[in-house]
Amino acid sequence: MNQDDLLKLLEEVKHGRLETGEAMQILKNFTVKDLGFAKLDTHRELRTGYPEVIFGQGKTTEEVKEIIRFMSTQNNNILATRVTEEMFRAVQDICPEAKFHQRARAITVMKKEMKCPDTYIDIIAAGTSDLPVAEEAAVTAEIFGNKVERIIDVGVAGIHRLYDRIEDITKARVNIVVAGMEGALPSIVGGLVDKPVIAVPTSVGYGANFSGLSALLGMLTSCASGVSVVNIDNGFGAGFLASMINKL
Amino acid sequence: MNQDDLLKLLEEVKHGRLETGEAMQILKNFTVKDLGFAKLDTHRELRTGYPEVIFGQGKTTEEVKEIIRFMSTQNNNILATRVTEEMFRAVQDICPEAKFHQRARAITVMKKEMKCPDTYIDIIAAGTSDLPVAEEAAVTAEIFGNKVERIIDVGVAGIHRLYDRIEDITKARVNIVVAGMEGALPSIVGGLVDKPVIAVPTSVGYGANFSGLSALLGMLTSCASGVSVVNIDNGFGAGFLASMINKL
Amino acid sequence: MNQDDLLKLLEEVKHGRLETGEAMQILKNFTVKDLGFAKLDTHRELRTGYPEVIFGQGKTTEEVKEIIRFMSTQNNNILATRVTEEMFRAVQDICPEAKFHQRARAITVMKKEMKCPDTYIDIIAAGTSDLPVAEEAAVTAEIFGNKVERIIDVGVAGIHRLYDRIEDITKARVNIVVAGMEGALPSIVGGLVDKPVIAVPTSVGYGANFSGLSALLGMLTSCASGVSVVNIDNGFGAGFLASMINKL
Amino acid sequence: MNQDDLLKLLEEVKHGRLETGEAMQILKNFTVKDLGFAKLDTHRELRTGYPEVIFGQGKTTEEVKEIIRFMSTQNNNILATRVTEEMFRAVQDICPEAKFHQRARAITVMKKEMKCPDTYIDIIAAGTSDLPVAEEAAVTAEIFGNKVERIIDVGVAGIHRLYDRIEDITKARVNIVVAGMEGALPSIVGGLVDKPVIAVPTSVGYGANFSGLSALLGMLTSCASGVSVVNIDNGFGAGFLASMINKL
Amino acid sequence: MNQDDLLKLLEEVKHGRLETGEAMQILKNFTVKDLGFAKLDTHRELRTGYPEVIFGQGKTTEEVKEIIRFMSTQNNNILATRVTEEMFRAVQDICPEAKFHQRARAITVMKKEMKCPDTYIDIIAAGTSDLPVAEEAAVTAEIFGNKVERIIDVGVAGIHRLYDRIEDITKARVNIVVAGMEGALPSIVGGLVDKPVIAVPTSVGYGANFSGLSALLGMLTSCASGVSVVNIDNGFGAGFLASMINKL
Amino acid sequence: MNQDDLLKLLEEVKHGRLETGEAMQILKNFTVKDLGFAKLDTHRELRTGYPEVIFGQGKTTEEVKEIIRFMSTQNNNILATRVTEEMFRAVQDICPEAKFHQRARAITVMKKEMKCPDTYIDIIAAGTSDLPVAEEAAVTAEIFGNKVERIIDVGVAGIHRLYDRIEDITKARVNIVVAGMEGALPSIVGGLVDKPVIAVPTSVGYGANFSGLSALLGMLTSCASGVSVVNIDNGFGAGFLASMINKL
Amino acid sequence: MNQDDLLKLLEEVKHGRLETGEAMQILKNFTVKDLGFAKLDTHRELRTGYPEVIFGQGKTTEEVKEIIRFMSTQNNNILATRVTEEMFRAVQDICPEAKFHQRARAITVMKKEMKCPDTYIDIIAAGTSDLPVAEEAAVTAEIFGNKVERIIDVGVAGIHRLYDRIEDITKARVNIVVAGMEGALPSIVGGLVDKPVIAVPTSVGYGANFSGLSALLGMLTSCASGVSVVNIDNGFGAGFLASMINKL
Amino acid sequence: MNQDDLLKLLEEVKHGRLETGEAMQILKNFTVKDLGFAKLDTHRELRTGYPEVIFGQGKTTEEVKEIIRFMSTQNNNILATRVTEEMFRAVQDICPEAKFHQRARAITVMKKEMKCPDTYIDIIAAGTSDLPVAEEAAVTAEIFGNKVERIIDVGVAGIHRLYDRIEDITKARVNIVVAGMEGALPSIVGGLVDKPVIAVPTSVGYGANFSGLSALLGMLTSCASGVSVVNIDNGFGAGFLASMINKL
Repeated sequence: MNQDDLLKLLEEVKHGRLETGEAMQILKNFTVKDLGFAKLDTHRELRTGYPEVIFGQGKTTEEVKEIIRFMSTQNNNILATRVTEEMFRAVQDICPEAKFHQRARAITVMKKEMKCPDTYIDIIAAGTSDLPVAEEAAVTAEIFGNKVERIIDVGVAGIHRLYDRIEDITKARVNIVVAGMEGALPSIVGGLVDKPVIAVPTSVGYGANFSGLSALLGMLTSCASGVSVVNIDNGFGAGFLASMINKL
Repeated sequence: MNQDDLLKLLEEVKHGRLETGEAMQILKNFTVKDLGFAKLDTHRELRTGYPEVIFGQGKTTEEVKEIIRFMSTQNNNILATRVTEEMFRAVQDICPEAKFHQRARAITVMKKEMKCPDTYIDIIAAGTSDLPVAEEAAVTAEIFGNKVERIIDVGVAGIHRLYDRIEDITKARVNIVVAGMEGALPSIVGGLVDKPVIAVPTSVGYGANFSGLSALLGMLTSCASGVSVVNIDNGFGAGFLASMINKL
Repeated sequence: MNQDDLLKLLEEVKHGRLETGEAMQILKNFTVKDLGFAKLDTHRELRTGYPEVIFGQGKTTEEVKEIIRFMSTQNNNILATRVTEEMFRAVQDICPEAKFHQRARAITVMKKEMKCPDTYIDIIAAGTSDLPVAEEAAVTAEIFGNKVERIIDVGVAGIHRLYDRIEDITKARVNIVVAGMEGALPSIVGGLVDKPVIAVPTSVGYGANFSGLSALLGMLTSCASGVSVVNIDNGFGAGFLASMINKL
Repeated sequence: MNQDDLLKLLEEVKHGRLETGEAMQILKNFTVKDLGFAKLDTHRELRTGYPEVIFGQGKTTEEVKEIIRFMSTQNNNILATRVTEEMFRAVQDICPEAKFHQRARAITVMKKEMKCPDTYIDIIAAGTSDLPVAEEAAVTAEIFGNKVERIIDVGVAGIHRLYDRIEDITKARVNIVVAGMEGALPSIVGGLVDKPVIAVPTSVGYGANFSGLSALLGMLTSCASGVSVVNIDNGFGAGFLASMINKL
Repeated sequence: MNQDDLLKLLEEVKHGRLETGEAMQILKNFTVKDLGFAKLDTHRELRTGYPEVIFGQGKTTEEVKEIIRFMSTQNNNILATRVTEEMFRAVQDICPEAKFHQRARAITVMKKEMKCPDTYIDIIAAGTSDLPVAEEAAVTAEIFGNKVERIIDVGVAGIHRLYDRIEDITKARVNIVVAGMEGALPSIVGGLVDKPVIAVPTSVGYGANFSGLSALLGMLTSCASGVSVVNIDNGFGAGFLASMINKL
Repeated sequence: MNQDDLLKLLEEVKHGRLETGEAMQILKNFTVKDLGFAKLDTHRELRTGYPEVIFGQGKTTEEVKEIIRFMSTQNNNILATRVTEEMFRAVQDICPEAKFHQRARAITVMKKEMKCPDTYIDIIAAGTSDLPVAEEAAVTAEIFGNKVERIIDVGVAGIHRLYDRIEDITKARVNIVVAGMEGALPSIVGGLVDKPVIAVPTSVGYGANFSGLSALLGMLTSCASGVSVVNIDNGFGAGFLASMINKL
Repeated sequence: MNQDDLLKLLEEVKHGRLETGEAMQILKNFTVKDLGFAKLDTHRELRTGYPEVIFGQGKTTEEVKEIIRFMSTQNNNILATRVTEEMFRAVQDICPEAKFHQRARAITVMKKEMKCPDTYIDIIAAGTSDLPVAEEAAVTAEIFGNKVERIIDVGVAGIHRLYDRIEDITKARVNIVVAGMEGALPSIVGGLVDKPVIAVPTSVGYGANFSGLSALLGMLTSCASGVSVVNIDNGFGAGFLASMINKL
Repeated sequence: MNQDDLLKLLEEVKHGRLETGEAMQILKNFTVKDLGFAKLDTHRELRTGYPEVIFGQGKTTEEVKEIIRFMSTQNNNILATRVTEEMFRAVQDICPEAKFHQRARAITVMKKEMKCPDTYIDIIAAGTSDLPVAEEAAVTAEIFGNKVERIIDVGVAGIHRLYDRIEDITKARVNIVVAGMEGALPSIVGGLVDKPVIAVPTSVGYGANFSGLSALLGMLTSCASGVSVVNIDNGFGAGFLASMINKL
């Protein structure tokens, strides 16, 4: 109910076409949702053309298959993260155009092309073992309609390799930096660029890494400005946020 | 030395106005910075017109005063964060146009107007005790040349007050959300908007808050997409990053 | 031995029908329990009609089966939590009326009807992966003789769905709110109702969730009044306490 | 604006005594709160007669004084927690009927009598150093209109003293149990009663107490059913929740 | 009431000298304590001649003074731990025989001689900064009636000094070992003796000591058998337990 | 080599029955251990008649078997802790008198009777799931030559059952108290007895138990005096220390 | 491009053989690496003769095999750590001279002899269960061309065995000390030698060991000077650093 | 007593010049120290010419003064760390040649020149607030007789400044790297040099720095080889170890 509706209702009351009791009932039953806050729906339904997203971890193969079966009846792209190869095979039966991204542990189904901005997102990963998280970010950013530049294996202990790619880095509109262990890479990148850096700590490592805690704390206390952090191993979150920024 | 300088130098060499030996000396003394990687300078010197920033905590009043005395000889705006009122009074002696932002615990000196984008940053704070951090973010965003909309005291326990400001929230280009205790507000805001949310945990609280840990973990594990997190109490970092995104 | 029994015993002594030596022996063997502190028995034996409860985790299938075999000789309802499907099948052999609650990972055996209060308990769960804990709470509350209203998948990132159920929520006598990750839901619910909120953090999540720590700290530092917290994943504890309050 | 007010407004419109434009303005300016969702108001304004609450910690003496000055113009009781004696003296100047509860570090102003249920809340404290938190709970419960029974210095290391008060304990409708160090008391009490136990860990102690962590974890993992936990040192929260349950 | 009392009471009933109603009242009013469990009193009242103990931390000078004033009217020795010099001067006014143990931060009042066993307790301290805790243990053990041998400054980094005292160490009946930082000393001592080792971690240190956590964990995971641990800085607890064992 | 042996050797030299070169070789090959520091041997070889101890965890079945094969050639009792049933079966082949303690996960081989003191150790366990640790303590204490009284399933939530066994508890010379979750039981027992209490936290539980941390912190901060703590799940350590104290 | 190249380039410009535009392009494209910082390559490519290193954990058997297949075409020694026996068998097929170090979980391939310094590294391990980490350090140090002295099973609880090897310890040029549980051994060794001690905490243990945290904190807070610490279980890191120091 | 002494003693016995009883007494009284292990003294007394070291923290001004008064009677250099300016003034009275190092919070007294190796130690500090720790390391290394090169304010967020000093860095024999916050600098330096890197985490920072924990974990999990870590803020330890390595 917008202002016009409200005015109309009051006019009805004024002219005796609506009983005050009834009017009161209508007004009283307003839920927040009824107030026309379309934005409330933003997160889930989104605008047409946006992918539907499934978080596969903790779901059975059967559940993932059924959700995708339903989704694929609609004309949206689909992204399923944290899935197994077994889940993919089950999905393939009902949705042959599904594609499996092994490293990213993701399934995508492209139903229609997304319009991409000219600018791109770069995804910088410290070590080869950070690749699954980096790829999850990349696949996410791509299916949400972004160009992605992968810059791999440029850990701080061999920092010159980062400089070899400096042009690709400084030209990106948003930077996703994925790193485990000491999580120092976002600080370095943050010192090189004047664009936002989304830092993704990974649980890669052992010992005092404490399941990603060392990288997480390192990134949060980064000396470089322009750096913010998402949850440990949350490649999807980084890709989603980077897409949001890239499309501003 | 920018590209023009470099070209000019080479022209000097070409026309014999500069000895190759001298030219080599100049080029050899280039530091990495000198090689035209303007981005390398981003963090500290930045582009002309960008504020110079001082982190006051852990510095003496005398030190802060001397740094600002030097900076104010140059034509840049100045921002000093985590300063005391005593520091401000010392600064005022040498720089009468300095302004003190009490809640934000910040000093600003405006030397010239910054060009502002039309879009604005909103800064949402859960409780009145989160205000110092929220104000630090606001003052930072403003001196970096952004319009800021403050949305105060809209904690999750009285969520309807958030809805009263929903239009201001959904129209912002970037959202900074500041909260202590359970740190739930960024999740709520992230579910209402389709723009980036920068979450700032504060150390406000007691008991199981553990100096901001509860808010920090809550924000990192937020169920809403589009949320990223900066260090506990890091209002400056949030303001800086928001400015970066707002100017993309 | 209640007061009547004690009086009777003393009468026996008085009238010489019981030797003082024998009486002393009886009295001396009184355990604290025997002294009429009926409440001492509350937790384990409870009042007639109350279910017997088994915590299945860490027990073998054989052990669970044997305990239920013994219990089912008595006329009480039975609740076994944290059991496997294999345990259920073993129990079924000896107790065909046993029922398995798959999601709740619980077995119930109804021997007689419990009297239910008119008021009900609502159980609000943030995400589908919180359902096992929510269902454990629901099954517990039901077998202890309560009506339960399930309100599912109303996480804070899509808060409007919570408002769609606001009437069911505000009419409940006690609210159980189950959430993982940032654990923000109890704060929201606590701000909407004027009835007790029992918050149950779950270990659902990854990364900075740290096995439920993020949700636990978030709930403990909730800004809303009227919220208290039970152990991570402790659906049974929440259901038991809610039943206790609902029957006050 | 309650339902009567709304009806009256609509009647005014109906009878032409209020323009629809004006009526719309009034309705539009309603916040969500105004729309008759009385529950939305629970936490802050509450029902008439309920105390207004101020959290003094982190506020200046001047701020506390000003808030109470404003509040005392209204006809509600007032409770200020975590205040200093200095704050009290400042408040006394403007509000002579204000009362200081030294141990509880609280100020109360009684404007009118609250109706008390016949049942009472007991507040059990392990050691003398837990008294400030216990008293904060007691003062809160009392000003919210409850009878309170204090049971003091009954720590688990001298458990027989608890038994001396067992009748008072088992007759209470709700139990608040306050303890620091190992936080074992709620487990004991939970095993003795069949009423809800609200456990309050305190930061009292040293060493491996880690600012209340030992008591907090101990209470969360309590073996007794019917126990739930509030934040460390949160006497107010326990008193508020106990009042809520006592008035069900 | 012991068995004899109980028999007598029953005889009274038998012979009609006591009404059954009255007898029931007496029996019913038994508290647990009344049942002859003298041990229930162990902790607080103890046997005659045992010191009364006050924990001074968190108490005001006035409170400590008043408690000691009352205690000194009885014929028991007195021990007050965690007291300040100011407290001592206040106590001296009313109790001139009070003695201050500066390093141990303790006050003792000797009213009568305790009988000492022939065996002794040794107290081994790693560094000079562990002395306050070591002395608290020593003063405690002494006033509880034990001979104490102090073995100071024998940290693991200069292990030969420990060997110089090896005879004193191996002849002790109980060993208290006080250490901060890495807390390794109890492991060494535990490998040298065949008597119980009570390990006391101290909060002495900085950095990764984390307020005694490093020493605490080190002692708990000691490879030597016969080692048990008390709370960080708990010299009193160690002295008390050592006395208990020495007097077995 | 004891003093007698040393004297004998010197006599041999004196009487020319042993060459000085040979004597030097014997003396030189003395390790520190040989120099008469009998205590140095305590931990491993101990005095004749003491059991040899093997920690099975992390060893292969083959390794455990080989160690026991060697040990059983000597005339000592043998204790192996943290072993599997498979290990036991392998051991049985070579050592038929070996006995398996299933709950304690221990193997014992009795080669000769130990002399037991008249006093006994009681072992109190909170819940049935604490039994493996309690039994490890019991089996350890028994093979080291002590009488043991088991007091099982007397958790704090049903404290009256503890009182049923109060005589057995107060008569013990040393008390081992095993508990998981909130770890409150040692505080209760410590308040009832005037003998040492060795507290063993167990990792039994879930959620905020954090692998035994809740019980560990609870026991370390126990309000009762006379309580000390060993490592989480360290039944052997508790049994060993209790034996040491029982034989003083 | 070294100084000669730069001079040559400028000469070309001077003599008109190179256009200033082209020269500028060459200069501008310099990456940091091009500036002749050979040291930038230190970590990965190293000097000829140094082993190539593979971290096997998290890699598949196939991946390890392929990396070694490639590496073995070059004339360098190879070290693969954290590998399984299965990986070794796969490697053996393509590289028969590969050697498996079972305890160290390492594969080495010797292509040519390394020159060893005369001095040696000793590797001291507290318990048999620390051997895998100690062996990883030993194998690493050896393939990097160092003599290694193993000193095994000399834990602090039987400290005399350490003294038996004191000559070997004090003559080493660098000491690696590997220990789990309380991690006290580096402190002891640090007190005996005047050479660097590299401490390696291991995750060996249970309970309050918390996956190596107890040993880690113990070593970091070591009272002995000359001790530094590497990551938990990081035998490779210790061996590499020790080699670096041994060859200074 | 070395082998010759032992042989001589046995000869004495053989030839009847020494009674077996006396010989036994001599042999029996050997302490470990007596066995000629001069290295046992290494840590404390050291070789002549080495500085005496005092840790001032936790000591009174008077104590520091007295220790230095005594030390200065001997012909050794003196180093006192963690001292205040007040302590220095007190020391100056009795030891006019004492020198105060304000930033390092250290006092040194040079009694005689130390011989310096030609190689030097570099000390790299990330930020100005890390200077106190860096200076403590520098002053320590210098008084122990080493040349030191300070490389200041080269944090990872402005990494090009590090490259400006690359020659100084790669020529050092040992590198001390001091950093707070994310602690990334040692990883960068470790990737640039082939010499040992001693990493010193500092407690500089706020929020998720958690008193140095973020830097500590970051350094421990460093991806660069050749890096080891000392305690948080332990500048002395780093300087001491660097000196040890520099003099190998």
